[in-house]
Amino acid sequence: MKARNGYQPCRLPLARAAALRAEIDHFQAEYCAVLDANEVELWPQFFTEQATYRVTSRENVALNLPVGLVYCEGRAMMHDRAVAIARTQMFAPRYMLHLLGSTQVQDETTDGILSSTPFVLMQTLVEGPSMVHLAGTFQDRFVREGEGLLLADRQVVHDTEILANDLVYPV
Amino acid sequence: MKARNGYQPCRLPLARAAALRAEIDHFQAEYCAVLDANEVELWPQFFTEQATYRVTSRENVALNLPVGLVYCEGRAMMHDRAVAIARTQMFAPRYMLHLLGSTQVQDETTDGILSSTPFVLMQTLVEGPSMVHLAGTFQDRFVREGEGLLLADRQVVHDTEILANDLVYPV
Amino acid sequence: MKARNGYQPCRLPLARAAALRAEIDHFQAEYCAVLDANEVELWPQFFTEQATYRVTSRENVALNLPVGLVYCEGRAMMHDRAVAIARTQMFAPRYMLHLLGSTQVQDETTDGILSSTPFVLMQTLVEGPSMVHLAGTFQDRFVREGEGLLLADRQVVHDTEILANDLVYPV
Repeated sequence: MKARNGYQPCRLPLARAAALRAEIDHFQAEYCAVLDANEVELWPQFFTEQATYRVTSRENVALNLPVGLVYCEGRAMMHDRAVAIARTQMFAPRYMLHLLGSTQVQDETTDGILSSTPFVLMQTLVEGPSMVHLAGTFQDRFVREGEGLLLADRQVVHDTEILANDLVYPV
Repeated sequence: MKARNGYQPCRLPLARAAALRAEIDHFQAEYCAVLDANEVELWPQFFTEQATYRVTSRENVALNLPVGLVYCEGRAMMHDRAVAIARTQMFAPRYMLHLLGSTQVQDETTDGILSSTPFVLMQTLVEGPSMVHLAGTFQDRFVREGEGLLLADRQVVHDTEILANDLVYPV
Repeated sequence: MKARNGYQPCRLPLARAAALRAEIDHFQAEYCAVLDANEVELWPQFFTEQATYRVTSRENVALNLPVGLVYCEGRAMMHDRAVAIARTQMFAPRYMLHLLGSTQVQDETTDGILSSTPFVLMQTLVEGPSMVHLAGTFQDRFVREGEGLLLADRQVVHDTEILANDLVYPV
């Protein structure tokens, strides 16, 4: 699954888009609450068994490059990553806080629901100011599972230049 | 149309305000997606034929000054501005990202729907960090056209001091 | 009332959580509009008569410390604080702007509705850039009063280190 480049206008009637946005808002609020509480071992539960997850720069997407800083294929791989992170002491304690903008619902097909959500990830080193760590968009494909949604694909497309060892945690 | 100064409490019943907020959220998500994708030539389509658009500081609004950094009257003028921008290479490539807060729906009259939406506009110079470029509120008047909403008036009231040649793009 | 530590998953069905989120969004938009317009004397009206309000750091919450930078018990105490602030000239004029992320609705019991909302508070000194002043979450308990909601308890849990004389205004 590739990140989508350029503006993708919403193809759904307003009422349907609004209903989906309410579901996606609910999902995103839980997702961010888990990561902001630093409970990274719960992170894979937001994805389907075969889901893909990638962190890549907007520049890579514009150049159509498949590479990215982080790539996970399948919940098992996310789980391994989460366990590894949970066991590793970060070199300096810090707090993370996700702030999400308005979700743009783009489409709903047999493959799932496509949406894009702008985010800013704030980082606060202990006893320090809060700084913008990463800004970008979540480019998501959701599928329905039981009562709620799960991510079948999340592309974290960041505007901010980041260093390889800077992004220990999932976004 | 002047920017509104001071707190404007919502004059609508909660259910009506919530329904309008859902429509406005939908609109804002599309609007920001277009600008963040840098497709400025699509920008005028969010306005009515006779719409007004102004970018001004909170200080100007407090002092009741009509001036502002940018002023457009009518979609034709916005179109000219958009074309001029699209043809101009920016002096340095950058990414923009709008992050919107909760929309406060204020009123609904025969003139349209009034609302205020806080925003932060992030700017990322290529290979650099993401910085807050502009913070402020959209003071909007929407009218209904067909299935959706269009802006009859947008006042971008920014808290941040900005330099004249800094604001090339619409906000 | 203590701030809640760790991830609190939503215990409500999606439809109920979405309906409550719409009400809370409405409330938060009014609350922030009042404070961002600097009309601090209207601030206590968002609370119940016996409400508690506390500003504390995430570190204090993690260590289970009851202390905080600001503590108000009852609307009368908030009113006194608001009047004192309104009468005091701030040492330097500035604009504040709240930007809220997605509200996570956590539960609804006979005690009220529990939710958590991430926020960033921007501060702009006159003629200056906009800076992140405070980032954190509102940990709220709402009760129903008439048509709308009122805060029975708000815990402003900030990630950012702040100085005692820095936080003159309610958040």
